[in-house]
Amino acid sequence: MQVIKLEKIKKILESVDVLTAIEKAFVDYSQGKVRSAPVSELIFDNPPGDVHIKSGYLIDDDYYVVKIASGFYRNPILNLPSSHGLMLIFSSKTGELFAILLDEGYLTDLRTAAAGAIAAKYLAPTQVNKIGIIGSGIQARFQLSYLRSVIKCREVLVWGRSLPNLNLFQQEMSELGFSVAIAQDITDITKNCQLIVTTTPSTSPLLYSQQILPGTHITAIGADAAHKQELDENILAKADLIAVDSLQQTAERGEVYHALKKNLISQHTLYELGNIISGAAPKRTNNHQITIADLTGLAAQDIAIAKSVYNSSRTLEKDSQK
Amino acid sequence: MQVIKLEKIKKILESVDVLTAIEKAFVDYSQGKVRSAPVSELIFDNPPGDVHIKSGYLIDDDYYVVKIASGFYRNPILNLPSSHGLMLIFSSKTGELFAILLDEGYLTDLRTAAAGAIAAKYLAPTQVNKIGIIGSGIQARFQLSYLRSVIKCREVLVWGRSLPNLNLFQQEMSELGFSVAIAQDITDITKNCQLIVTTTPSTSPLLYSQQILPGTHITAIGADAAHKQELDENILAKADLIAVDSLQQTAERGEVYHALKKNLISQHTLYELGNIISGAAPKRTNNHQITIADLTGLAAQDIAIAKSVYNSSRTLEKDSQK
Repeated sequence: MQVIKLEKIKKILESVDVLTAIEKAFVDYSQGKVRSAPVSELIFDNPPGDVHIKSGYLIDDDYYVVKIASGFYRNPILNLPSSHGLMLIFSSKTGELFAILLDEGYLTDLRTAAAGAIAAKYLAPTQVNKIGIIGSGIQARFQLSYLRSVIKCREVLVWGRSLPNLNLFQQEMSELGFSVAIAQDITDITKNCQLIVTTTPSTSPLLYSQQILPGTHITAIGADAAHKQELDENILAKADLIAVDSLQQTAERGEVYHALKKNLISQHTLYELGNIISGAAPKRTNNHQITIADLTGLAAQDIAIAKSVYNSSRTLEKDSQK
Repeated sequence: MQVIKLEKIKKILESVDVLTAIEKAFVDYSQGKVRSAPVSELIFDNPPGDVHIKSGYLIDDDYYVVKIASGFYRNPILNLPSSHGLMLIFSSKTGELFAILLDEGYLTDLRTAAAGAIAAKYLAPTQVNKIGIIGSGIQARFQLSYLRSVIKCREVLVWGRSLPNLNLFQQEMSELGFSVAIAQDITDITKNCQLIVTTTPSTSPLLYSQQILPGTHITAIGADAAHKQELDENILAKADLIAVDSLQQTAERGEVYHALKKNLISQHTLYELGNIISGAAPKRTNNHQITIADLTGLAAQDIAIAKSVYNSSRTLEKDSQK
């Protein structure tokens, strides 16, 4: 049994094609090749925090994976990252533990960012002049960083509540080749950006229907639990196409959940991203449509990233023994 | 962050009062002091196996605990134990990982055995002349071993499907001071034993209503999933008192689940063991009653045992530094 720490994981990731692994995970999931347990969730009141436990396996595969990831959003006050967690890889034949990936939430951040990039790849308008980012935390940075490989645009508007965080975001993202301006008002984003990514743990809407212009794609990342929400439900009612990572999961959590509950949309108007990727469901057909991707996070993504890291680590080990 | 291996855990357990910790866990649970996520379950077909993930925390406590435990029942053919797993202790204030207990399923076996002993303590007839054990695997041994501290009787009848296992059981349990006979027929058990413990992963009934005599207590341990069952549902209909570890959990899994589904019993006739312990629910009142304890396993028990081991390990560490 191996225990792999974060530094080593980052090293291993240099030889992993994360985007391809996560894209395949979406397709596998929508084609029914993944068995996963419903997400387990623990909610903490004081200080506020939440823990998500995801688990599952690919049919006929040798592994099963359990992922534990938490968000304690006051941690930065204590100079601690808000994300924590780990991934565990077991034998699906005997139950033996093969590896513990002590990723401290890093792999979750990474696969979530990859998922955002894949959503943009299939749903963003062909012409994006400005990218809008809502939130300036870790996930905001990861999202923008991964968008580099699928979107040519390097002009960014960012909106957030913490000026120090926004300044840091601006500085760090400039180093990645982006030109970043800080939005004074959230409507600066909706007026100017064709691709908007929302990345906050908000529990009430930040974006409203009347603000959203034709030709916008929004990827909603933050709402991974029933009590979280970043988009006014009417945005979903207004959209031409809504993609979800999982029809089953978004019926219980995320932006779609709120819109379904208010009967503003129906399950029939939703398409799984995996089916959009494989061609079994429609894509955006022109640059005037409004499209939404509601991503709540799949065990399938965790399985894919954990397996990729574990397999690469074994390959690197064998190579070093040659 | 500490990684504590099984050998060390066994050493630490010498200074842990498991029975008291688990008894308190039942009371805490029934008094609403535990928050836990619904059990996550993964089922494997080939080879057959199941994984249960339990997680939760005590309100106002500093920790949250996640437990992963699996049963792959063909493992013994490969000379591997059927149980595997680990427990993880995190901060409920920041999400940081404090400790990994690599117990390989041992702590689950232990707390399950302690739960069985507590059920017997509160529900078995005052006069037990013979203990009946159904199944001869690891859990059968653990159950009998823990019964020593709550029941004076040392006469045992065991029934199982594997003669080598039964012989091994007989030998090992004799070393613990029991006089063990192997039952030829399951009715030998029901005719002679006032306390019966069922410990198999059976998916169809092993004991039937007409076999059960007045003055019997049965603790059903094996059925921790919806597809598992050791008792004919009519046994529950016939019982004078049915105790469960959790009203919520046994509505979805275990023996009670099957009896509820067939409308043979109602939720109103069920009492939580935690309430029986605290005096808020009735106990057995005479030696002629038939009582059942249906135990499906609680996150509260996992939290209790994991915390006990972790706290003892820290105390031992401090002592060694003095």
